[in-house]
Amino acid sequence: MANPVLPSSGALSPLGLDAVRLAPGFWGDRVALNREVTIAHAHEWMEREGWIGNFRGELPRRGREFSDSEIYKLLEAMAWADHPDFAELALTVVKAQEGDGYLNTRWSGSRYTDFEWGHELYCYGHLIQAGVARLRTHGQDAFTEAVRKAADHVCRRFMDGTETCGHPELEMAMVELYRATGVERYLELARRLLERRGLPALGPIHLGAAYFQDDLPVRQATTLRGHAVRALYLACGAVDVAVETGDDQLLEAVRSQWERAVARRTHLTGGMGSRHADEGFGEDFELPPDRAYAETCAGIASIMLSHRLLLATGEVAYADLAERTLFNVLATGVALDGRSFFYSNPLQVRVPAEPSDGINLGHSGGLRSPWFAVSCCPSNIARTFASLGSYLAAADPSGLRIHHHTPAVIEGAGLRVAVETGYPWSGGVAVRMLADGRGRLSLRVPAWAEGATVGYGPAQAGDLARREAPFPAGARDEAAARTRIVRDATPGYAVVEGEWRAGDVVTLDLPMAPRWTFPDRRVDALRGTAAVERGPLVYCAESVADEPPLADLSARLAPPVEHAGPSGVVELEVEAVLGERVSAGWPYSSRPAQPATTGTSLRLVPYHRWGNAGPATMRVWLPTAG
Amino acid sequence: MANPVLPSSGALSPLGLDAVRLAPGFWGDRVALNREVTIAHAHEWMEREGWIGNFRGELPRRGREFSDSEIYKLLEAMAWADHPDFAELALTVVKAQEGDGYLNTRWSGSRYTDFEWGHELYCYGHLIQAGVARLRTHGQDAFTEAVRKAADHVCRRFMDGTETCGHPELEMAMVELYRATGVERYLELARRLLERRGLPALGPIHLGAAYFQDDLPVRQATTLRGHAVRALYLACGAVDVAVETGDDQLLEAVRSQWERAVARRTHLTGGMGSRHADEGFGEDFELPPDRAYAETCAGIASIMLSHRLLLATGEVAYADLAERTLFNVLATGVALDGRSFFYSNPLQVRVPAEPSDGINLGHSGGLRSPWFAVSCCPSNIARTFASLGSYLAAADPSGLRIHHHTPAVIEGAGLRVAVETGYPWSGGVAVRMLADGRGRLSLRVPAWAEGATVGYGPAQAGDLARREAPFPAGARDEAAARTRIVRDATPGYAVVEGEWRAGDVVTLDLPMAPRWTFPDRRVDALRGTAAVERGPLVYCAESVADEPPLADLSARLAPPVEHAGPSGVVELEVEAVLGERVSAGWPYSSRPAQPATTGTSLRLVPYHRWGNAGPATMRVWLPTAG
Repeated sequence: MANPVLPSSGALSPLGLDAVRLAPGFWGDRVALNREVTIAHAHEWMEREGWIGNFRGELPRRGREFSDSEIYKLLEAMAWADHPDFAELALTVVKAQEGDGYLNTRWSGSRYTDFEWGHELYCYGHLIQAGVARLRTHGQDAFTEAVRKAADHVCRRFMDGTETCGHPELEMAMVELYRATGVERYLELARRLLERRGLPALGPIHLGAAYFQDDLPVRQATTLRGHAVRALYLACGAVDVAVETGDDQLLEAVRSQWERAVARRTHLTGGMGSRHADEGFGEDFELPPDRAYAETCAGIASIMLSHRLLLATGEVAYADLAERTLFNVLATGVALDGRSFFYSNPLQVRVPAEPSDGINLGHSGGLRSPWFAVSCCPSNIARTFASLGSYLAAADPSGLRIHHHTPAVIEGAGLRVAVETGYPWSGGVAVRMLADGRGRLSLRVPAWAEGATVGYGPAQAGDLARREAPFPAGARDEAAARTRIVRDATPGYAVVEGEWRAGDVVTLDLPMAPRWTFPDRRVDALRGTAAVERGPLVYCAESVADEPPLADLSARLAPPVEHAGPSGVVELEVEAVLGERVSAGWPYSSRPAQPATTGTSLRLVPYHRWGNAGPATMRVWLPTAG
Repeated sequence: MANPVLPSSGALSPLGLDAVRLAPGFWGDRVALNREVTIAHAHEWMEREGWIGNFRGELPRRGREFSDSEIYKLLEAMAWADHPDFAELALTVVKAQEGDGYLNTRWSGSRYTDFEWGHELYCYGHLIQAGVARLRTHGQDAFTEAVRKAADHVCRRFMDGTETCGHPELEMAMVELYRATGVERYLELARRLLERRGLPALGPIHLGAAYFQDDLPVRQATTLRGHAVRALYLACGAVDVAVETGDDQLLEAVRSQWERAVARRTHLTGGMGSRHADEGFGEDFELPPDRAYAETCAGIASIMLSHRLLLATGEVAYADLAERTLFNVLATGVALDGRSFFYSNPLQVRVPAEPSDGINLGHSGGLRSPWFAVSCCPSNIARTFASLGSYLAAADPSGLRIHHHTPAVIEGAGLRVAVETGYPWSGGVAVRMLADGRGRLSLRVPAWAEGATVGYGPAQAGDLARREAPFPAGARDEAAARTRIVRDATPGYAVVEGEWRAGDVVTLDLPMAPRWTFPDRRVDALRGTAAVERGPLVYCAESVADEPPLADLSARLAPPVEHAGPSGVVELEVEAVLGERVSAGWPYSSRPAQPATTGTSLRLVPYHRWGNAGPATMRVWLPTAG
């Protein structure tokens, strides 16, 4: 089955990518853009920067020590997207492999001499994930054989001993290769790598052992910590090992780490990571909006982790966080034209960025960049969109669960349905049966959706009147009007059970009124502010060229007003007051700041759309007036 | 004259270290501790870590690429302190010099191949400052000859061309060597290095050209920016060049950079630097208390810069900032036992640090460390305390100015005085004439000291009744009672002019009531908080082992109550309320945080004393209740 994550057990079973076909809509458009634009864009930049040339032996070698992994992530993206450039690029990689299976363009002459920073096993991890993608979309070929050979080399070299890699990633890749091939040594190596970590397994570094999660064994840790991507990839591997080995204690450990990190170390956007210095989580309640790191890759890794926990447990909270992160980190990470990217995703930008078309040597978050010296995010975005369908729905023993509402045709658990919706701009979702069938249909009702309703027929859904195919655009209201029962749907799942005939429709209505959101008072950096959310979207004030200057504005907590923006986007307007600007030689005084009084208003846009209109200031958390 | 900074012109003239003899008191005790403990402590660690062995050719070379500079800063400290270990350590350095004057234990085999990160010219700068200290305290010897030889090598190599060093430092050192020797090429090289910078002179780095102030020529920049120590050292060099070349435009440029950085980029403690990732300033009003970097070295560099600007202009605001930084950064940087150090000086610590007696590979600020892998701060502290007397007073054309009130005997501008005071714990300062004399006495009245008074005789100070020598302890009140005029002294200088007889006393009374201080509302990270200051000291809540948990407490803005702490220290108590702890799975909600109501109190200690009682939480900025 074509899906990056196929556990052999768990509460939910994934569907194949061919069973979830996205139609035009919020996510379908993004996935198409990824296939048509972003993959080629990444391919071009990797060639231009010499990272592909490294595999051809071009000298001097270019790029960072982990640049091989970008090619592998791109290959994974191409495999899931059935992209025509896969074969040639894969061949370039295969040719660089050494006789014993070793494959790395940076460390070939000095294998395994730097476990802390070398990223060799990390690179194998991404190579293997690309190999699994190819196996599951195409079957064996020279590339998958090379991947197996590399994996076998790694097993021989690392099955015994105490070594592991400074960057987790190989763990989940090895489990997935085991799932794809049935070869148990891959699972065993993943298990051993996981158990070694934190004994400790790595040498001291200036960022501290927690940076690469080597401060504690994974099953003893109580929260996610250190470098966010490393922490989340490790947790993914732990879930995978736990599921395949039936290790409930390990699964529980990761679940409580997730819970604590979500409760104390996660930005409103779902972004994770508060420190630039180590791309790390920081401490509980350390959630600065301006220096939020919230790396795009960490958002992707968080989605990967929540998805694994959702499959293992069937608990909807994991899908809630995944949705928040999909809309507010993944969708933010790439520009509307698919050709530039955010590495970090701050929740406040004070100074408009300097535009540049060149490579970004750093990670600054004021404007998207076409490429980075460390360009992990674009290829991660590419492979995530290429496999996005795998996150939308899953099967449970009684039927089909739809977690993310976007236009698509979904087939699973004996049902075949079309989802039609303008979500996230509007809150109505219609799920139409495309064939007769029997089974439970569970539609996720997000945690914020207090007051949602689900509409369906009385007693037995099979009694529902048939609808004409194809489902006409705009027919959602019509369908809703004709259904016979509308009942409250509380956050969780709206479950409708019965026998279905082709044309039957289930409707879900999610309340989309904008809402003010306040931080826990332990979040020092957000004291005295509030943010606006609408549906699954976080909104922000964006001020192009800082006109009006955002530093002078405070918001009144009146209900935001909706405005139609471009392309069906809903924008919001909030009442605001303009503060007098105090000019002084010292920013501290014995007089508290005076409240502002001049009334004005402030336009808010969905956070994921900010930064597409040129250099701007931005803030998600608005100081509140009075 | 024994003083690190001897400009050939300017509003004020420095006094030699032999003319400012510190007596027991706040600073005198610290200076004695430095000479007796800290210098030897640093010497031992540099030997233990092999950084001194590098000069003996021991292999493998140890320490970072700039570790030579630590030995030079220690030598400078030893020279100012007339420390007996100077000669032997200096000889070790001299022996490592190459025939053409080149001296660097890291780059000997690959000279000048990495200007961005190599720190070669930076190391020469510290070598030269040590040489100047030796010249001015002892005169020529083999070490000062080696320093001259090195300086001449550097002049030959870098007088022409476009190269400079990624870390400014050589500029001010070369100017001082010019001042000490009269050799004009040293000044000329400093001038050229300064003018080259920002053209740009260095290659691209991932932290951006502003990191090492290579984004703009120094005279075009409008604020201090990038790496804080680099920015401040460069500004010091610019002032020195401006003063020696009569370049008023350059001086004005640095003055406005100082003004803007002080108004927008300086923590309440005087600490500079808000970002860990680049040890940098960050943006205007980016002043997070928890992630305040406020590197000890940046505080020292800020004191150096303010001192230079004070000498050049005679404007008291520079001394005000220097005092704030002396008491709240320099004094904080070293433990009460002189054997451990803060690298960064955050204004909030949420989680008690793990104690460790070993080398600190990072810079974390939760507890002081005996040594660091990058150990710039301890040796910088050592050289600053060893020359601290140079900051206390200066001469202007009409008399003596005392900028920092601490027990000392000071001789300058034809006056010889003893200063007696319990400052900063009490606000009374008595300055007693130790000899007959004539001239103006100017005592600094800090900007916060609204309501200060100065006491002295009528019309002519020479009319004052004579006092018996020696000045008895506690006689300040008696002296104050007998003086004939007490008048208001507004912030700036309290100036008393006249003819003096030995025994005459001038008293200054500074109001020491604790005061609440509020941040500018543009400082997002401090919204809804206030801090307490008393005299020149910033206070903080310190909670050993986080009992009571600081995260649960908010302060009421009632007047703080004073308590006598250990060793004459004044501690404060403020009213507080205890918030209910909200436990939730997500730190954001549609309900604003509820105000706390349970009354309690909170003990505050001087910020510079925190962290001496074991692992603790701490905060300078207290959330305000209601």
